[in-house]
Amino acid sequence: MNTDAHGRGAEPPASFSEPNLPAPSHAERARTLVAAQRMGSLGSIALEPAGYPYASLITFALDGGLPVFLISRIAEHTRNLSADPRASLLVHESDKADPLANGRVTLVGSVRKLGRDGATSARAAFLAAHPQSAYYADFSDFDFWRLELEAVRYIGGYGRMSWVDAPAFRDAVPDPLAPAAAGILAHMNADHATALVAYARAFTRARDVQSTVMTAIDRYGFEMTVTTASGPGPARVAFESPLSDANAARPALIALLRDAEAKFPPR
Amino acid sequence: MNTDAHGRGAEPPASFSEPNLPAPSHAERARTLVAAQRMGSLGSIALEPAGYPYASLITFALDGGLPVFLISRIAEHTRNLSADPRASLLVHESDKADPLANGRVTLVGSVRKLGRDGATSARAAFLAAHPQSAYYADFSDFDFWRLELEAVRYIGGYGRMSWVDAPAFRDAVPDPLAPAAAGILAHMNADHATALVAYARAFTRARDVQSTVMTAIDRYGFEMTVTTASGPGPARVAFESPLSDANAARPALIALLRDAEAKFPPR
Repeated sequence: MNTDAHGRGAEPPASFSEPNLPAPSHAERARTLVAAQRMGSLGSIALEPAGYPYASLITFALDGGLPVFLISRIAEHTRNLSADPRASLLVHESDKADPLANGRVTLVGSVRKLGRDGATSARAAFLAAHPQSAYYADFSDFDFWRLELEAVRYIGGYGRMSWVDAPAFRDAVPDPLAPAAAGILAHMNADHATALVAYARAFTRARDVQSTVMTAIDRYGFEMTVTTASGPGPARVAFESPLSDANAARPALIALLRDAEAKFPPR
Repeated sequence: MNTDAHGRGAEPPASFSEPNLPAPSHAERARTLVAAQRMGSLGSIALEPAGYPYASLITFALDGGLPVFLISRIAEHTRNLSADPRASLLVHESDKADPLANGRVTLVGSVRKLGRDGATSARAAFLAAHPQSAYYADFSDFDFWRLELEAVRYIGGYGRMSWVDAPAFRDAVPDPLAPAAAGILAHMNADHATALVAYARAFTRARDVQSTVMTAIDRYGFEMTVTTASGPGPARVAFESPLSDANAARPALIALLRDAEAKFPPR
């Protein structure tokens, strides 16, 4: 029996996807996930009890692909980081009912306190993500810190995980469709069931398609659960070329529907 | 200027509470908070990059006041814990829009892998909290682990925090009103504005009460934000005796209203 990253011994359903479709790299998926959040869990090495790993709640922003924090010198984790700069930041999705189906990323590295002069970009990034922090950002006991990455662990739910190259994470561009994805999925599943079945018939290896649910969308394409006479399975469909923004999704989906209907004219 | 636990230098508003009212201890507040959650962030000491604090997502349950986990041997954090048992578990609320206003608890200690025989109560507690885990609980690469507590850090939002005695946390009883609290607050604030003002007039030091919002309720009493002619402030009101279950809240609130009206008859 296969055992995926969580050791849950479920066989993944067979994929109906055509081979070698373009899809986000794990670096892109991880960067997109982190960019959508503003709160995480910080791991630090505790002063007390000494040497224990200490997990605490922290707000963050991304500045040039690196997490930055605005923390008080009297906070427990700040005292820990001042004594030992090794740290990690766990960031996770929380939209799925099954906790372990949510994607998450652990960013591991060492923090550096930024001087007033060095904090310009960190400050701008942090205040943009946390406008309510403006009133204490200049208090004398608060400093900006940056996490310099050494390792990135990505878990995209069950069965999709890897160590991601840290520079690849830092340089990856968050998916431009991410902020609109939930809305697109809801719209397509509510109003375009026929189109989804047409995509599955035309662009996947599924046969005897009964119904199709769109489960994800990104700049390179979208993912569906396709139910066939012989059972359900996942499938990916690629756009003709990567989209540069969310507004490009609608024309791209319409163009794909025309292609699908040209291939299998609706009865 | 006072600086509270997050170093935000805001002066807390003056409290209108009468002195020395019974209220949950921090051990009880922390235990109640943790009992309401089933997912947290685990801190472990990484094997790779070696020695770094590693934060990861984990599901848990409480078994006799101690966190128990069901984790696969191939998961990154399990490999970490197998090499170094020191760990922490961060558990936080997430109902407040301001991330740092949410209460959170960090449980620090050392984990112990439970043998099949030693895992009976851990197994029962975990499966009760995570019924969907039943199908993999007996897979050979999964084990139950328990976190033996050495230190407990409680942060109940801005300005309420402490190190809690670990045995006190373990032995504390979660507040029986907690599961019903949100419903009680919504009901009181929507339908009983007059009663809330009567409580504030009769049982707090607030004068010229204009309006009152109930913000929390527990077995010992409830908390309000009271707006007066000279500004808003928090206030606590105690029940005559601690409540043993959520059904006791309604008669207790009605009895308090009668007492309040006896003291200040409604015009």
